[in-house]
Amino acid sequence: MAKWNESIDMEAPQFKDFAKTMTDFIAEYLENIRDRRVLPTVQPGYLRPLIPEEAPEKPDQWQDVMADIERVIMPGVTHWHSPKFHAYFPTANSYPAIVADMLSGAIACIGFTWIASPACTELEVEMLNWLGKMIDLPKEFLACSGGKGGGVIQGTASEATLVALLGAKARTMEKVKAEHPDWDESTIRSKLVGYCSAQAHSSVERAGLLGGVQLRLIKADSENRLRGEALEDAIKEDIAAGKIPFYVVATLGTTNSCAFDYLDEIGPVGNKYNVWVHVDAAYAGSAFICPEYRHYMKGIETADSFNFNPHKWMLVNFDCSAMWLKEPEWVVNAFNVDPLYLKHDQQGAAPDYRHWQIPLGRRFRALKLWFVLRLYGVENLQAHIRRHCGFAKQFADLCSNDERFEIIGKVQMGLVCFRLKGSNELNEKLLKRINGRGKIHMVPSKINDVYFIRMAVCSRFTVSEDMVYSWTEVSAAADEELLTNGN
Amino acid sequence: MAKWNESIDMEAPQFKDFAKTMTDFIAEYLENIRDRRVLPTVQPGYLRPLIPEEAPEKPDQWQDVMADIERVIMPGVTHWHSPKFHAYFPTANSYPAIVADMLSGAIACIGFTWIASPACTELEVEMLNWLGKMIDLPKEFLACSGGKGGGVIQGTASEATLVALLGAKARTMEKVKAEHPDWDESTIRSKLVGYCSAQAHSSVERAGLLGGVQLRLIKADSENRLRGEALEDAIKEDIAAGKIPFYVVATLGTTNSCAFDYLDEIGPVGNKYNVWVHVDAAYAGSAFICPEYRHYMKGIETADSFNFNPHKWMLVNFDCSAMWLKEPEWVVNAFNVDPLYLKHDQQGAAPDYRHWQIPLGRRFRALKLWFVLRLYGVENLQAHIRRHCGFAKQFADLCSNDERFEIIGKVQMGLVCFRLKGSNELNEKLLKRINGRGKIHMVPSKINDVYFIRMAVCSRFTVSEDMVYSWTEVSAAADEELLTNGN
Repeated sequence: MAKWNESIDMEAPQFKDFAKTMTDFIAEYLENIRDRRVLPTVQPGYLRPLIPEEAPEKPDQWQDVMADIERVIMPGVTHWHSPKFHAYFPTANSYPAIVADMLSGAIACIGFTWIASPACTELEVEMLNWLGKMIDLPKEFLACSGGKGGGVIQGTASEATLVALLGAKARTMEKVKAEHPDWDESTIRSKLVGYCSAQAHSSVERAGLLGGVQLRLIKADSENRLRGEALEDAIKEDIAAGKIPFYVVATLGTTNSCAFDYLDEIGPVGNKYNVWVHVDAAYAGSAFICPEYRHYMKGIETADSFNFNPHKWMLVNFDCSAMWLKEPEWVVNAFNVDPLYLKHDQQGAAPDYRHWQIPLGRRFRALKLWFVLRLYGVENLQAHIRRHCGFAKQFADLCSNDERFEIIGKVQMGLVCFRLKGSNELNEKLLKRINGRGKIHMVPSKINDVYFIRMAVCSRFTVSEDMVYSWTEVSAAADEELLTNGN
Repeated sequence: MAKWNESIDMEAPQFKDFAKTMTDFIAEYLENIRDRRVLPTVQPGYLRPLIPEEAPEKPDQWQDVMADIERVIMPGVTHWHSPKFHAYFPTANSYPAIVADMLSGAIACIGFTWIASPACTELEVEMLNWLGKMIDLPKEFLACSGGKGGGVIQGTASEATLVALLGAKARTMEKVKAEHPDWDESTIRSKLVGYCSAQAHSSVERAGLLGGVQLRLIKADSENRLRGEALEDAIKEDIAAGKIPFYVVATLGTTNSCAFDYLDEIGPVGNKYNVWVHVDAAYAGSAFICPEYRHYMKGIETADSFNFNPHKWMLVNFDCSAMWLKEPEWVVNAFNVDPLYLKHDQQGAAPDYRHWQIPLGRRFRALKLWFVLRLYGVENLQAHIRRHCGFAKQFADLCSNDERFEIIGKVQMGLVCFRLKGSNELNEKLLKRINGRGKIHMVPSKINDVYFIRMAVCSRFTVSEDMVYSWTEVSAAADEELLTNGN
């Protein structure tokens, strides 16, 4: 056993060597990521035989750990930052954000209250002001306007959706209790009903399950966009049936096809019926830093809360999901438990963010936003968005020129939805072949029983040639598939 | 506007310089953290005037950002890793964990499914096996036993408590629905009741609020420990009143005073009444890597889920909250929404951790655990725990030798609860003075209307001399206070 005053930690000089070696490894990994197989070939359980069954009693050397990254980890990594990765939506990764997270790891404060590290709370308030201004959010959402509104960094869009739902629930419960003092909480709760498009992300439905309230999926129009009229019909129907509408999620940029709900129709309907309007722009919201895309936000002034993920498309590493609320007090008061050990003298003068979120603890994530906004500048972030949109158009053009294929819906942002003209089964086989060839990686989706393939532009390393490469892969896989099947 | 193929990113050589400069800054910051004022003197709103009102259009230089850390951030940082920080509980910070997070930031995969990065899921499975073995968790909790059980990294203990509550709710709902097919969900939900000690963390009560179920706080015994009999009395009372007990949280190491509930009494009661037993050992759980502390886990075999935070006391940076479940399927199936874009061919062969947690996205956090376990070794991690416990005893001895003071309860782990003999008001003034002098930082708590001060050993840099320093500060503040008040 070590003596009390004997250090058991890695010493600073060793740390410096280790961190600098890791820095070189990271640069090498990212700059040459294109050369790695994007999707691993390992089978479930691959890792267990590669490491000991138990933690070592005595410390290993950091050089051994470094060596094990290629031996143990890399064979099982799906390379999300390869230009050959087109699955899901992008997740962000940038050098400034990585360095910011190093600092966050060193300060390692838990910013649950203002006093627990004032810089952690205050930089977050200011970065949400900067970011809100960048997308021209109405001032009612911004703390710098001096009103009640303000922003917060959540971990994920799913958490933002749940937080907004809980705020909506609290607001409606209070209102209904005042109108019907004889109804108990569980009676009211059982009448609550929320809404989203059937095209909304699965996490919206899950928020309903987690929050224990009914969430109704409404059919979108032929362009996969939720309209105000469809929402109002549902609301009227539910009110007639004795239910209490309380929450609606409008999606700007769905995961399936990057469709945009008509916020300018949904918002006014929500307002008319006292239904909390939450806007989920997880992926596409980053594009609103470019004025030419802001028309999709039309109606934003009618929303109660707005969320998008700089950790998706704005080069801030996960997790950094930006959320603004016009009236955060509905969330703050609903779940405010205030033990003595967390009280402090400055309560009320600055937000205590622990009341704004599901977990209690929180890292110093505003640093990432600060580093990225400063070290890219608005101009380069806009260029990043525009490049990705341009690449998607380039891919779509290549696809359109091949008459075996069809584009599904409109090409929106950095996403192209496409399929071989033919059956769902044929396209399932095509995708299996595309991923099986191991050169690029894509995932499918399905709308109204039409199965299609999604090509999302994901990497910050992507250049035009990558689009040609990816298209050539799709085309070659189609050749193979059509030949095999004799179509 | 940048051309499509023109890089807008920081280049690799710049990144290397930047990251290496940050490495040196971090080593300098942490090695000399003792010299900084532990609690900042800034007032709310201090930061806004120090930075521009908007994000820059053109990129700043990274050297300017580095310089702004001391100018903008550090004046507002509460230095959680200073040996002079004794507030709350420790939060972890170590060199190996910081370097691991760099790699996590570079790989930057979102491990929501196995295929989204097999290494991310599999290393997590294995690290939870390593860790589970280190604390001698019954094999029913471990994935390597080949049964149904397994571990997962949650963000925080509050999320683990909520996840367990939701699993418990799903299990009981299914059982009651089968017994009473005529009862609807909202009727059942309104009858559910969960339990915890009145000494449990505020996040347990909050989990009840979030989950929309009643959570009953039960009085602990004279040593602040929840007993089985008190729980059983409450359960019987509720059953007689037509309620349905479904969940109990046993706390091993409360935040107020590091008291340990009688798990060996609570567990069997829970099992008897089909009540899900969750164990929250957020802080103290790390001590169970030392055999001499495992007697506090007696009864662990009766639990359904167990949670502790390596990000508190085991040198793994936040966030890393380790949770094990005997039957994860109750959580997995309760909130399983499974859209096509997240399906993959290997489903079922390995866990898809998105079903185990509240958010959808998740970082590659197992790397931190791997690096820390390997680069400390079990032996040094045990030494870290034992040193902190030793420091607490040292402080308690100093305090006991001053007859103006009294120790509240037993000294447990790295926490000492103490007060001046006298009124609550006197002790509130004493704490204000301690924190006001600016040399050390502590927070208070209150049990049964007795206000006291908590001294938590938090820093990995702490040595014996720091305990003498902190005690001298407390003693000097007491001299001042007693002199001023003429006591």
